[in-house]
Amino acid sequence: MRPVLTVTPNPALDLTTRLDVLTPGAVNRVREAQEDPGGKGINVAGFLASQAAPVPVRATGWLGEGNAAVFRAFLAQGGVDDRFLSVPGSTRTNVKIVEDDERVTDLNFPGFTVDAAAEAALLRAVREAAAGAGWVALCGSLPKGASPDLHARMLAEARQAGAKVLLDASGPPFAAGLAARPDCIKPNGEELGELLGERIAGVADAAAALGKVQARGVATVIVSLGAEGAVFAEGDRRVHAVGRPRALRSTVGAGDAMVAGWLMGGLRGLDLAERARLATAFSLGALSTLGPRLPDAAEIASLADLVEVETLPDAA
Amino acid sequence: MRPVLTVTPNPALDLTTRLDVLTPGAVNRVREAQEDPGGKGINVAGFLASQAAPVPVRATGWLGEGNAAVFRAFLAQGGVDDRFLSVPGSTRTNVKIVEDDERVTDLNFPGFTVDAAAEAALLRAVREAAAGAGWVALCGSLPKGASPDLHARMLAEARQAGAKVLLDASGPPFAAGLAARPDCIKPNGEELGELLGERIAGVADAAAALGKVQARGVATVIVSLGAEGAVFAEGDRRVHAVGRPRALRSTVGAGDAMVAGWLMGGLRGLDLAERARLATAFSLGALSTLGPRLPDAAEIASLADLVEVETLPDAA
Repeated sequence: MRPVLTVTPNPALDLTTRLDVLTPGAVNRVREAQEDPGGKGINVAGFLASQAAPVPVRATGWLGEGNAAVFRAFLAQGGVDDRFLSVPGSTRTNVKIVEDDERVTDLNFPGFTVDAAAEAALLRAVREAAAGAGWVALCGSLPKGASPDLHARMLAEARQAGAKVLLDASGPPFAAGLAARPDCIKPNGEELGELLGERIAGVADAAAALGKVQARGVATVIVSLGAEGAVFAEGDRRVHAVGRPRALRSTVGAGDAMVAGWLMGGLRGLDLAERARLATAFSLGALSTLGPRLPDAAEIASLADLVEVETLPDAA
Repeated sequence: MRPVLTVTPNPALDLTTRLDVLTPGAVNRVREAQEDPGGKGINVAGFLASQAAPVPVRATGWLGEGNAAVFRAFLAQGGVDDRFLSVPGSTRTNVKIVEDDERVTDLNFPGFTVDAAAEAALLRAVREAAAGAGWVALCGSLPKGASPDLHARMLAEARQAGAKVLLDASGPPFAAGLAARPDCIKPNGEELGELLGERIAGVADAAAALGKVQARGVATVIVSLGAEGAVFAEGDRRVHAVGRPRALRSTVGAGDAMVAGWLMGGLRGLDLAERARLATAFSLGALSTLGPRLPDAAEIASLADLVEVETLPDAA
């Protein structure tokens, strides 16, 4: 199996804390705290590496020196080939404060800032790590100081190394990356709507919009629609896949799990319908765990059996 | 000059954040965040190392692996000889959320937990790092899992290595450490009151209480009294020192600065009154900076000139 490389320019440390009541203006003692190294590409790498027949996974991007150890330990433990570059400062922390009545307060920190030298180093790292890889997944937001077209430039490096490229981002960095024609994108309905200037309210809207995105030079488009599942388009073919999670514990990483399942299905040589099934099962698996985690491969297989896959009419 | 060793079993990462308004139940974007490696002994080491004629400073204790890099970079940058031991987990973070109206909300996280093997390793590290040191400062609270008498056991190691020992702690770990008769302690009025079961409301109360603590086998006792300065007792002699900060920006580390100034004065061979003066100047310097920082040596000297030192009657 050819390796997968995931790239996360702007990871995040998710710090989930529990306390009785959050009292502004007072000293609040946190009862429990759980630290999860996160960021879309890191999640995808972790999910791929966690399954029983793991794909060789490489991961790069930037990590702030201050708290890089948490991320590197996570990658090492998962057997991910860690190609991250360290930059001065600390990777941003997103604190989630959960009170006993389940009210959630988020406190999102600014992270590190990169310069032109750091960008040049990352482009070099992508080129080197993409060598021999089947797919490169470019994931998520960009840190302060990064060029808005960084995803497009990384895409060029990956393609020159012979890899196919999946882009999973939003806002201006997504639009700029899209101009470089990735092989696959995975917007959610809202992101797709923002891109096209339309409202995407469900499966029919998404299916109708797919051709417009493909016309921009993207062969494969996956649109995730929350409880309505996802629509998958490859060339002229379209399928819709949907399932129910066993439990809904957290949506953290559900979209990243879909990307991981899709890539895994491709590496296993599955056809479109079966790749859509596996991608959906990964996503359902992530919904049933707390934080960005997947159940084991047996549970993923069992979830896959329950996913309904429907073939939609081919594009005209 | 013989080196000083500071020991911090339970450091903390102080994360001071600024935002417009903290809204519970919402996503709050932090505008600025400043990370300060803290913990009493780390502060003392940093203060000593920051002055123009620095004392050779060693520092040990435990650091959680997850965020140890921030602490190690701080120590390296200050020229402190870093003898800290890494343990699994992360060092506790204390988040201070400062809103635009200056309301402050604290969010204090639990930290790492230590076991008997970690304690044995720390005792060994203290023994080794105390060799050749003039003073060992045992500072602050103990992490989860530590024996309540850890300060007393570290004290025995330091003394066997030929060093004098200063203990700066509170609550049960302070009481347990005190039983091993440190050479010097620096409680504040409240901590002294708690120890003796009395109310210490000012200079006269503190001066009257000093003999009772010295009777427990402690030669030197410093009692800090906030705006009323501090009372210093060595053997039968007592002085009171007080001054005014140029500005009051934060009280973080003011007590630790007093410890650092006291140790520095001792190493310079100053007499009791001049040591009290320098200790007070360090403390005033810390009050005029944000976070645990000292102004430069020239400003400390200028503050020292303004400190009033009064000799109190000798103990009977």
